[in-house]
Amino acid sequence: MANLFEPGCLTGVRVLDFTQFEAGTSCTQVLAWLGADVVKIENPQGGDPGRRAGATKPHQDDPYFLNYNSNKRSVALNLKSPRGLEVVKELAKKADIFMENFAPGAIERLGLGYDVLSKLNPGIIYGQVKGFGAGTPYENNLAFDMIAQACGGTMSITGQPDGPPAKPGPTIGDTGTGVLMLVSILGSLHKRNVTGKGVHLQVAMQDAMLHYIRNSFGITYKTGKPARRAGAATLEANNPPCDIYPCAPGGSNDYVYVYTSRANPQHWPRLLEAIGRKDLIGDARFATAEARVKNQAELDKIITEFTSKRDKYECMRVIGAAVPSGAVRDTLELLNDPNFVERGIIQPVEHPHRPNFKMAGWPVRFDGQTIAVKPAPLLGQHSAEVMKDWLGMTESQVAALQAEKIIHGNAEAQVGQAAA
Amino acid sequence: MANLFEPGCLTGVRVLDFTQFEAGTSCTQVLAWLGADVVKIENPQGGDPGRRAGATKPHQDDPYFLNYNSNKRSVALNLKSPRGLEVVKELAKKADIFMENFAPGAIERLGLGYDVLSKLNPGIIYGQVKGFGAGTPYENNLAFDMIAQACGGTMSITGQPDGPPAKPGPTIGDTGTGVLMLVSILGSLHKRNVTGKGVHLQVAMQDAMLHYIRNSFGITYKTGKPARRAGAATLEANNPPCDIYPCAPGGSNDYVYVYTSRANPQHWPRLLEAIGRKDLIGDARFATAEARVKNQAELDKIITEFTSKRDKYECMRVIGAAVPSGAVRDTLELLNDPNFVERGIIQPVEHPHRPNFKMAGWPVRFDGQTIAVKPAPLLGQHSAEVMKDWLGMTESQVAALQAEKIIHGNAEAQVGQAAA
Repeated sequence: MANLFEPGCLTGVRVLDFTQFEAGTSCTQVLAWLGADVVKIENPQGGDPGRRAGATKPHQDDPYFLNYNSNKRSVALNLKSPRGLEVVKELAKKADIFMENFAPGAIERLGLGYDVLSKLNPGIIYGQVKGFGAGTPYENNLAFDMIAQACGGTMSITGQPDGPPAKPGPTIGDTGTGVLMLVSILGSLHKRNVTGKGVHLQVAMQDAMLHYIRNSFGITYKTGKPARRAGAATLEANNPPCDIYPCAPGGSNDYVYVYTSRANPQHWPRLLEAIGRKDLIGDARFATAEARVKNQAELDKIITEFTSKRDKYECMRVIGAAVPSGAVRDTLELLNDPNFVERGIIQPVEHPHRPNFKMAGWPVRFDGQTIAVKPAPLLGQHSAEVMKDWLGMTESQVAALQAEKIIHGNAEAQVGQAAA
Repeated sequence: MANLFEPGCLTGVRVLDFTQFEAGTSCTQVLAWLGADVVKIENPQGGDPGRRAGATKPHQDDPYFLNYNSNKRSVALNLKSPRGLEVVKELAKKADIFMENFAPGAIERLGLGYDVLSKLNPGIIYGQVKGFGAGTPYENNLAFDMIAQACGGTMSITGQPDGPPAKPGPTIGDTGTGVLMLVSILGSLHKRNVTGKGVHLQVAMQDAMLHYIRNSFGITYKTGKPARRAGAATLEANNPPCDIYPCAPGGSNDYVYVYTSRANPQHWPRLLEAIGRKDLIGDARFATAEARVKNQAELDKIITEFTSKRDKYECMRVIGAAVPSGAVRDTLELLNDPNFVERGIIQPVEHPHRPNFKMAGWPVRFDGQTIAVKPAPLLGQHSAEVMKDWLGMTESQVAALQAEKIIHGNAEAQVGQAAA
């Protein structure tokens, strides 16, 4: 089994977390993984709408929520009451980091904008994720992952050359943006250790997409044209093979990637040897990258002759020993691969609503150890304890807040939710 | 014009950078943007092979290199000489962070593995990016972006439902991995400020891909099946419209994304109003999400009727004012959009080899300001000055290293390169 541990990188760092869905939650989850105390403030009527995204049974948090909120604590708090807002401001005074990704203007309308909180706590690092940047014509528009991927260029370079744009399946618009905010938060934390001063961080999902397509911008700079779509190949496909090849038994993900590097002229003869075609070494039709471009149809046939008779793992084993190669793996294969659990890349997480749940944890290892994932909190699970931890409230002060329905434990939040 | 500045988050932090291509270089570039002194060690014969990737003229660094190495310094150093290796070890003693992404085993064979450097400098944060994780059957295999994307699941969920897997155009395998390493480095730096102890960080590109496809794992958990491909739609397409629609004049990227949120039942009537079809509000064929799934063909026709007669920007303007919507933008449109330059998201960078070069900088704003991008270094441009800055060498000591061909300035490196 994997060597699981708590890295304690951010021990003592407090995060006041107003995030929902994915772009914000994925960011604060990593802060929790790194050891920060992340307190998620949620409305008592259902909490983060991500809890219900795709869920069918009442009070059963969806895997979507579990995947982005592990290792956090939840406080269910009535933001519509003046006393509730006061409590939030008290928490903000104790926080190192504040993070939100509501619709444009929402947090400011709540009276919790940067101007307000930075006066209460000049050291606070205040992060905001929006769909479009301030100063664009769309700064007040809502965005979701797919809107960011449409407007940010990632769709234009994904799909078949003769087909329409496709959305990259990975949620780069959400998690891809959250991780860039995360980097800025951590960099700012380092500076704050010296200066004591906080900062207002803002990122737009559309703008964040550009970080992931810089190769395509390089191509556009050189050609003066939009980067094209290239199926499974790379955008500068000038050195075949560099594509997927079909494998037995022919299912929708039975393919193997085969690549020979232009920088390494030994790759092509090594590949030929691996697929039992030493006879073709030196054949002028394939001897140079240029020749292989010209005769690509024939080349593809030769490789397919080998791959189509074997399954993708066998192909990866044989071809991958000679040149860069990889089986196309689907999400079921990855989730059920015992090697991933053994290495702690995928971890079983015990959650009361979701038996046998497994999730992808943080993939980076620290001195060979993997960060342990703890289940996402139930709505309001830590309302009382955070009032004590962060604000030093007594048992009776907490009871008073509960009686006034300012904060809710999980049982009360659920009753409120069912009634709502 | 954008308010460009130097954030100084990592002022005084020294990075010894042995990265090449993209997965490593993209990581250390952000450290430089955040204010660290990033010194790139390159072999005098051509340097980082990324300099030549796609380049056609000698001594002309490719945009691929420029895009991942801005704000760094370059030292051209002969690693094959014992004195050169000694110099590297002296530099490592002064470094806070060491980063590399060579082929498996290469840095250790050079005698610069974590075991060696951590003895010389117990506080060093030592990062390594490889293709496959230690403990997998492929831990010694090479990988590139597309291999990681094949094996890491991102390809299996990208493309048309009835077509083969497509590679997401964004280089998630490279930059997407580099940014996760970056987060771990910054988290570790915070801890080191307290403990003084360094850490050995390792990430595999295959494993990193799982971080970006967690929604798909949630679907697989619930269905027991691999997540499918869904074209431009989302994977749980249960609330149409949620797709791209064709616009005038019908070019390969003339599409607009149209989305109505399941969580907001007002979206559908708002969309009908925006496209001039108020007459359909309340029509039972489209009144609920379930009905819209059932009658999606008809619904698509109604929306296309509107979009196909207008260009994508007009569609985004009109529909985006009502519901989440976005034009599919290509890389030429983004690179040439004056609004992106005005906001500093894309910045002109003066480079001697590449006139009129523009690149995407860091998209996160700090107190409304954007980090200034400085051009990538020429090979060996800072060899002499780094010997003085980091090691306190005198003019004559530096001259001796140059005379022995241990370090090379840019002119000498180019001569060496031409001769190689």
